[in-house]
Amino acid sequence: MGRLVLVRHGESEWNARNLFSGWVDVDLNDKGVAEATRGGELLREHGIAPDVVHTSLLRRAIRTGQIVLDGVDRHWIPVRRSWRLNERHYGALQGKNKKETLEQFGEEQFMIWRRSYDTPPPAIADDAEYSQAGDPRYAGLPSELMPRTECLKDVLERFLPYWYDAIVPDLLDGRTVLVAAHGNSLRALVKHLDQISDDDIVGVNIPTGIPLVYELDDELRKVKSEYLDPEAAAAGAAAVANQGR
Amino acid sequence: MGRLVLVRHGESEWNARNLFSGWVDVDLNDKGVAEATRGGELLREHGIAPDVVHTSLLRRAIRTGQIVLDGVDRHWIPVRRSWRLNERHYGALQGKNKKETLEQFGEEQFMIWRRSYDTPPPAIADDAEYSQAGDPRYAGLPSELMPRTECLKDVLERFLPYWYDAIVPDLLDGRTVLVAAHGNSLRALVKHLDQISDDDIVGVNIPTGIPLVYELDDELRKVKSEYLDPEAAAAGAAAVANQGR
Repeated sequence: MGRLVLVRHGESEWNARNLFSGWVDVDLNDKGVAEATRGGELLREHGIAPDVVHTSLLRRAIRTGQIVLDGVDRHWIPVRRSWRLNERHYGALQGKNKKETLEQFGEEQFMIWRRSYDTPPPAIADDAEYSQAGDPRYAGLPSELMPRTECLKDVLERFLPYWYDAIVPDLLDGRTVLVAAHGNSLRALVKHLDQISDDDIVGVNIPTGIPLVYELDDELRKVKSEYLDPEAAAAGAAAVANQGR
Repeated sequence: MGRLVLVRHGESEWNARNLFSGWVDVDLNDKGVAEATRGGELLREHGIAPDVVHTSLLRRAIRTGQIVLDGVDRHWIPVRRSWRLNERHYGALQGKNKKETLEQFGEEQFMIWRRSYDTPPPAIADDAEYSQAGDPRYAGLPSELMPRTECLKDVLERFLPYWYDAIVPDLLDGRTVLVAAHGNSLRALVKHLDQISDDDIVGVNIPTGIPLVYELDDELRKVKSEYLDPEAAAAGAAAVANQGR
């Protein structure tokens, strides 16, 4: 059985401006580049060399994967990408300021949209500024599959087919698999692997840029998992939990 | 039938130091990054959006592909890599200074090693500093396939299976295919597509960073080809011809 390494992308231009990104394709900023660079250093320090990388179709995860792999001299490994690893689609909230949204709709509604397992935000209109309708990277995606908003449950459901069909075979081949993705697509995977309940996943936050390494058994369940820099990971998770404040 | 776009990587740290690189995995320098950036701009200006990218296993071509695609908003397309797109293996010349090699061995021998179609330089020893023996990226390559030196004929022979098996199917699917590779792997492809003779290919030089676009017929032969910046391409090809002087 191979080894699974998860990396959440670092700070993007919109994270820094406290905007909901979702499927909007914003780039890393300098801090995000530094976080990815640190992620590569941590892999190198721990002697972990990925054999294959899976990313979303969004630049901030793609670049994070590239920078991490560059740092550990694995820029040449096979690359797989899928929309199924994308961040949660934030619906009509995409492009909105988190603090303003919190003030406008109140703490309770805000937390439901951000963290409810099964309540998505309002859907985005196809003609809205930050809609992905017409984006060529989703041209092959049938309309009924194309999200216009998502809750975490939706993310888990669209992510799992990719997990089973694309990532698991690499693990069964004994490979070290890097997944460079997003807060919520990785939370969905962690929920699945750690068998976290719908209620408890609300409190799970994944820090940025710090590789999270899973050892799995033959049934693809967790034997153990650890962040390569546990102290920084704890601080990073707390920072994520406080976003929007 | 799809469209084929070739990009040769820009200046690397070793190009700038006038060293033979071959399979040694040197990075782009700042000028090389700028050349790749210009390559992406040229694609954008001409409205050419690749659907898939093929690269070698060497960082300077991989990064060139990434930078070009980033510039034309195609960072998310599928990526394929193969050692069969690598630069020509320069054998025992790898790591040596071109000017010193010219002075040491004389013009005639130097030009045979650089440009002869079917005479490779001396093979590199497995324990030489710049040998790729033991490099994990070639761990799956049987010893009898692993080059220790190559002439252009060798490059063409090891490249063609990848052309037919991996690139041609993308073209037959109607895709715009970007190949980000090296002076000699691209010369091999151009020799094949343009049906250039063994003698005449010696005089063909491919400039760095300037996309070369092929329109092919149903038999995968050239209808026409053009550099997106013909003036810069002519100047660049002349500069390549004068390397080592």
